[in-house]
Amino acid sequence: MLERRHIQRIVDMALDEDAPFGDLTGQTLVPATATATADLVAREPGVFAGAEVFEVAMTTLDPAVTVTMKAADGDRFGRGTVLATVSGPARAVLQAERVALNLVQRMTGIATLTATYVEAVAGTNARVVDTRKTTPGLRALERHAVRCGGGHNHRYSLSDAVMAKDNHLAVIDDLTTALKQAKADLPHTTHIEVEVDRLDQIDAVLASGAADTIMLDNFSLEDLRAGVAQIGDQALVEASGGITLDTIADVAATGVDIISVGALTHSVRALDLGLDITVS
Amino acid sequence: MLERRHIQRIVDMALDEDAPFGDLTGQTLVPATATATADLVAREPGVFAGAEVFEVAMTTLDPAVTVTMKAADGDRFGRGTVLATVSGPARAVLQAERVALNLVQRMTGIATLTATYVEAVAGTNARVVDTRKTTPGLRALERHAVRCGGGHNHRYSLSDAVMAKDNHLAVIDDLTTALKQAKADLPHTTHIEVEVDRLDQIDAVLASGAADTIMLDNFSLEDLRAGVAQIGDQALVEASGGITLDTIADVAATGVDIISVGALTHSVRALDLGLDITVS
Amino acid sequence: MLERRHIQRIVDMALDEDAPFGDLTGQTLVPATATATADLVAREPGVFAGAEVFEVAMTTLDPAVTVTMKAADGDRFGRGTVLATVSGPARAVLQAERVALNLVQRMTGIATLTATYVEAVAGTNARVVDTRKTTPGLRALERHAVRCGGGHNHRYSLSDAVMAKDNHLAVIDDLTTALKQAKADLPHTTHIEVEVDRLDQIDAVLASGAADTIMLDNFSLEDLRAGVAQIGDQALVEASGGITLDTIADVAATGVDIISVGALTHSVRALDLGLDITVS
Amino acid sequence: MLERRHIQRIVDMALDEDAPFGDLTGQTLVPATATATADLVAREPGVFAGAEVFEVAMTTLDPAVTVTMKAADGDRFGRGTVLATVSGPARAVLQAERVALNLVQRMTGIATLTATYVEAVAGTNARVVDTRKTTPGLRALERHAVRCGGGHNHRYSLSDAVMAKDNHLAVIDDLTTALKQAKADLPHTTHIEVEVDRLDQIDAVLASGAADTIMLDNFSLEDLRAGVAQIGDQALVEASGGITLDTIADVAATGVDIISVGALTHSVRALDLGLDITVS
Amino acid sequence: MLERRHIQRIVDMALDEDAPFGDLTGQTLVPATATATADLVAREPGVFAGAEVFEVAMTTLDPAVTVTMKAADGDRFGRGTVLATVSGPARAVLQAERVALNLVQRMTGIATLTATYVEAVAGTNARVVDTRKTTPGLRALERHAVRCGGGHNHRYSLSDAVMAKDNHLAVIDDLTTALKQAKADLPHTTHIEVEVDRLDQIDAVLASGAADTIMLDNFSLEDLRAGVAQIGDQALVEASGGITLDTIADVAATGVDIISVGALTHSVRALDLGLDITVS
Amino acid sequence: MLERRHIQRIVDMALDEDAPFGDLTGQTLVPATATATADLVAREPGVFAGAEVFEVAMTTLDPAVTVTMKAADGDRFGRGTVLATVSGPARAVLQAERVALNLVQRMTGIATLTATYVEAVAGTNARVVDTRKTTPGLRALERHAVRCGGGHNHRYSLSDAVMAKDNHLAVIDDLTTALKQAKADLPHTTHIEVEVDRLDQIDAVLASGAADTIMLDNFSLEDLRAGVAQIGDQALVEASGGITLDTIADVAATGVDIISVGALTHSVRALDLGLDITVS
Repeated sequence: MLERRHIQRIVDMALDEDAPFGDLTGQTLVPATATATADLVAREPGVFAGAEVFEVAMTTLDPAVTVTMKAADGDRFGRGTVLATVSGPARAVLQAERVALNLVQRMTGIATLTATYVEAVAGTNARVVDTRKTTPGLRALERHAVRCGGGHNHRYSLSDAVMAKDNHLAVIDDLTTALKQAKADLPHTTHIEVEVDRLDQIDAVLASGAADTIMLDNFSLEDLRAGVAQIGDQALVEASGGITLDTIADVAATGVDIISVGALTHSVRALDLGLDITVS
Repeated sequence: MLERRHIQRIVDMALDEDAPFGDLTGQTLVPATATATADLVAREPGVFAGAEVFEVAMTTLDPAVTVTMKAADGDRFGRGTVLATVSGPARAVLQAERVALNLVQRMTGIATLTATYVEAVAGTNARVVDTRKTTPGLRALERHAVRCGGGHNHRYSLSDAVMAKDNHLAVIDDLTTALKQAKADLPHTTHIEVEVDRLDQIDAVLASGAADTIMLDNFSLEDLRAGVAQIGDQALVEASGGITLDTIADVAATGVDIISVGALTHSVRALDLGLDITVS
Repeated sequence: MLERRHIQRIVDMALDEDAPFGDLTGQTLVPATATATADLVAREPGVFAGAEVFEVAMTTLDPAVTVTMKAADGDRFGRGTVLATVSGPARAVLQAERVALNLVQRMTGIATLTATYVEAVAGTNARVVDTRKTTPGLRALERHAVRCGGGHNHRYSLSDAVMAKDNHLAVIDDLTTALKQAKADLPHTTHIEVEVDRLDQIDAVLASGAADTIMLDNFSLEDLRAGVAQIGDQALVEASGGITLDTIADVAATGVDIISVGALTHSVRALDLGLDITVS
Repeated sequence: MLERRHIQRIVDMALDEDAPFGDLTGQTLVPATATATADLVAREPGVFAGAEVFEVAMTTLDPAVTVTMKAADGDRFGRGTVLATVSGPARAVLQAERVALNLVQRMTGIATLTATYVEAVAGTNARVVDTRKTTPGLRALERHAVRCGGGHNHRYSLSDAVMAKDNHLAVIDDLTTALKQAKADLPHTTHIEVEVDRLDQIDAVLASGAADTIMLDNFSLEDLRAGVAQIGDQALVEASGGITLDTIADVAATGVDIISVGALTHSVRALDLGLDITVS
Repeated sequence: MLERRHIQRIVDMALDEDAPFGDLTGQTLVPATATATADLVAREPGVFAGAEVFEVAMTTLDPAVTVTMKAADGDRFGRGTVLATVSGPARAVLQAERVALNLVQRMTGIATLTATYVEAVAGTNARVVDTRKTTPGLRALERHAVRCGGGHNHRYSLSDAVMAKDNHLAVIDDLTTALKQAKADLPHTTHIEVEVDRLDQIDAVLASGAADTIMLDNFSLEDLRAGVAQIGDQALVEASGGITLDTIADVAATGVDIISVGALTHSVRALDLGLDITVS
Repeated sequence: MLERRHIQRIVDMALDEDAPFGDLTGQTLVPATATATADLVAREPGVFAGAEVFEVAMTTLDPAVTVTMKAADGDRFGRGTVLATVSGPARAVLQAERVALNLVQRMTGIATLTATYVEAVAGTNARVVDTRKTTPGLRALERHAVRCGGGHNHRYSLSDAVMAKDNHLAVIDDLTTALKQAKADLPHTTHIEVEVDRLDQIDAVLASGAADTIMLDNFSLEDLRAGVAQIGDQALVEASGGITLDTIADVAATGVDIISVGALTHSVRALDLGLDITVS
């Protein structure tokens, strides 16, 4: 869950990266007393994400800058929509512009893409979830953006749930015993998920009584259906692996509970938003 | 320019984000003494970027991990190519896997995309450059990836060159005077670039004698040619604004010196690379 | 789960706190070339915890210091046992001594105390778990010490599981609905635990179908038994609230799955360990 | 001496540790607009310490939270006393609760324990002081708590005074000469204290003319009296080593100036304080 | 360019260094409720630099402190001038005094010295610039102080411009080729400066077409004139090396564009400023 | 006292400041495989300080760099002396050069200046000490340099000794009582020093029995002698205020114990040292 202090740290880092020793342009070309009012304008339609990020990014350099949001996280908007209005000292507004846009365009791009996947599974019981294929340093923001688009989050990190993937299975001798032992050792609050690549691996997982979720990785639709039937209510079922907008509805129809889509975050197209000065 | 200590900081941050309080899966399911050897394999062709990043990411958690690179930054590779081999304690290899892949897939995606733009202008004098539309926190890596793909870098940040953009011009009264004054105040090492949206703005910029580069933003091909002719050798000429793979060759043919392409970094598609365990 | 980089950060912080601008005594009274060998000796019996912490603390100031552990985490030891031997430059050994002891005495105190609680429930199905009543900054070490003593961990933090406590319930209007909504919103990997103070609150929790664990807080033994019966296998049952060594066996006999004991960490008695110089 | 910026850093660290990526419970179960008023209530009598720490802990997450202290540092209170009232957004209050209590219960436990030792030496000239056996990371808070209980502080760290202990003496050839040299080298503001284990070591220390304080470690009452007599006004005399509430009055009666008690901080029992919601 | 967040970080670091665990004097000798008003007074004439630094330093510990500046950066002042008035809680004012003076005296010393060099070249076209011989950690402040004294800045760091110095030339085989290659690789915004020690090195530099500035290091006046003539408008000309107040006018008269003076920052004499309490 | 980890932090900070995003010159003009050997050469005579700082600065960027010291801290050297030899990858050597020189020239300047003051008081009992007028961020290095020059250190900071200065006295009502109270409250290890501006203030200080040192600020020689006589062995006597090389011998002859000289660090002239490449 996104908290303001997390946003502030990311914004501070980004502003430092973008001006490690000051904004030469602003300080030499923009009068110290100049003010500006600007609109955050959508140059294409989408689903908004990042209102609080935008506010923090625009106001950190100079608290005299004010931001009035016209859109809330999760709002759908059309081309030309004014999403927010910024007003204040021109130097601060112009220095923060690129950082604010870089962050919000990325988040809005993720929310917009997620919404298309979520729509595609409408009417089924499947939830669309993200993965750990996020941008290093921006995971909290990107997971929030997935939620803005109607998606759900998977575990946050290696620290808050177990996920035994193919590479783990490759180094485990006796999966059933290992899973039982893990369940006996881990906090009772730890969710255990196991990835399988083939139907014939499911029995060993179920035999452990330890798996809360079984992920069926790169399964055909037929095998997904078989896996769902086999697992029944002994565990949640997650489908994963190369699922696209074209295939997700069919995957959802197999009865899986969860569909994880790496593409939600690993290949983000920044949505085209601009900051247009309206008064200066 | 990328230095090892910068890479190390990004890797440390990413590992922390991905395991704030330890890897539950590795520590419960993978024996402490298990070892693994794994290949970094290309699942699609591309141009490689991130060799040193991959090495640092894989070896930070446990110095007993060794990495042998099979590809160097800038190398073209085909589907199925083994780019590197990793060997060492299985817990460390598996814990670092996702962070290493997240970083290298992104960098290789940028290098691969950049190469297509660079090829498209082959035979012209134009250089393809990146922009400040990079991922907050990863600018150093992404700029390096652009160079791996044959592209050039623009300024690093607001601190190392002046770029007067449309929003700056909106708050400047007398551009010629302001530019003269800026040149008089700034270090003699500061490059001054000015963005213009219309041909009729060029005169005021040239009159200042202060602009080292003039950026022609969102110009038609005809106007680009006119701008190039008008500016002559009084300044470098940069074309910018919505330039795509389809249009870049024509833009280059207008005689501009520099073509900046935000898409190189703002909407990165991670190239599909995987880590396949070969011995465990 | 404890990782070396987490230990290193805690040790660095502790060494800085204890010598913000150098060790006056060592640098003026101890010759730079003096060496010392010292034993970590138990002055009372216990269960050891903190081997890796001790190693990192003793070797951080000067890599020429070597540590040979004679005891492993979880080992029981008697009075007079040598748990480790340290050898190296005397200045580094003496400067690190207090920090190393402060950390390891605390951890060993926790492990030793935990073992007494764990023994008290031997033969039952109940696991003894810690709470968030840990020392700020040392949670990772203290949870590790609980495991060394045979105990289990509860959730790590507010970020990795839901725990609705009495103060949350006080601000929730309709608990059943709120829990359903939470389960619908949260990652499927998030364990949901709900604390109740009275038997008559259990129905509302069960009705939500959302609670993975129900905590019975400050229940009489009779009510615990009733709660266990009512909940059956619809959720795990945790007993909590003022449970002591005198009462824990009876609590365990009620059939609860989990018994959380704040005293494991909130009021640590440091076990008496000393560093005795044997050769100088 | 405790300063607000030191408190703020400890609180920030503790809040981060307790919610590295957000409070799942608050954000899903507590309405964003819910408010709460709560009392910090003593569940047992004691001596209060940590008013400013409590204020900073409760208000850091959301400045809309207000704290009204009803007790000041050093105040004695009975069971049931309301020590403070907190009011504000429920999410912030509930998220900060555990961190605030963990810190203040520990500090109040130290103050309360210290007060018992201080009372035991009432009417003598001896002052009760703490040691470096504090919790790593919390030394500033714990020393403040000792003062709240009427105790005094010893040196803060290795950097602000010299203390030659048994392990130092073990590596020093000629103590008298070494102490003279140290006094000649050190700042004139550096207090020099030397620990001795036997009466016959005192002469060598006095001969140096360098010791401002001599610590008599683990001396019998008889030897303490002899040491006090021998040292006279040539140095302050500190008694140390296994002094308990049962023995401290007798130790004080020997005429020593200072009695250091590791137990004040090394084995803290958190005093039982609770946060009770009164309005929600 | 100096920004407030950079100032704040330097001030925080300096306050921490000067009081790592509190101000013993203020907290024991100054009543918590005492207030003080004090003047920042010049004890010798000079050119002021550091108004914002002074404000941040005096107000960081306690926002109740107020500062009224009577002088602005770049102002000339005489002995006895009141440059600022500070008012607020006496503890905070007295604790910050030394840090504030240490910073502002240094900055004002630099500005005052710079002004003498700038005056010495008045009427010529030469600008006086600083070097990288700044105090580690304080470069941003010292460069700002140079500007306050009427000087100009050279490049900020190794990252924002190329400067090939004698030690670089010593490891380059073919300078002309190396410079051409560098220009082809570097961002178009990167200014390239090359240092030469002898007139006969200039041709190789000019032949590259890559040098924006040529630095003539330790040239005689005669050789400077020859260098200026040879280079003409093919590059800017910088004179460097042991230039003093006695020689700078003659150097400027040779027609060089830039004169770099390491002494502006490498050997700063702190200007004598004091903080005099006027009301307490 | 200077420790390696403190040196490392200062060096890391300085290298970051000097190359926030890489060394453009080294990476474009110096071949990656080029090596260089260079001498650290004295261009004027002095007293050396900073051997370990130089080693850390030169080896941090690349551990393949080796440093052989030819001079030790405190060594006197003549013009032309080779103080150290550096060898390794040319990029790393050249990138670190300026940072290493900036630090060592400053430290050696301080040591050299200090030695002249120390020589001037030879044969007296007075010790020459530094003040808190050090460069923010570099206090540990500068104090070490003072010791290298034969001087002594005063207190490190506001945290490790009390110094009641004129501005404190201005806000204290009853000095004798305040000092008594401070002594009663402070750790017994805290040295208390009081500054007086006039002879008639001494009685009140002595009456408190609390002052370990009395500083006579800006006293005439006659008054210094009177002060020394009056104070006798009731406290150490420190002379301070505008003492120069011309006056320090006379001041020492008055019998004061300590002479503090702000000029040792507040106005450092960097000693002229250079790095000459000998093999490349």
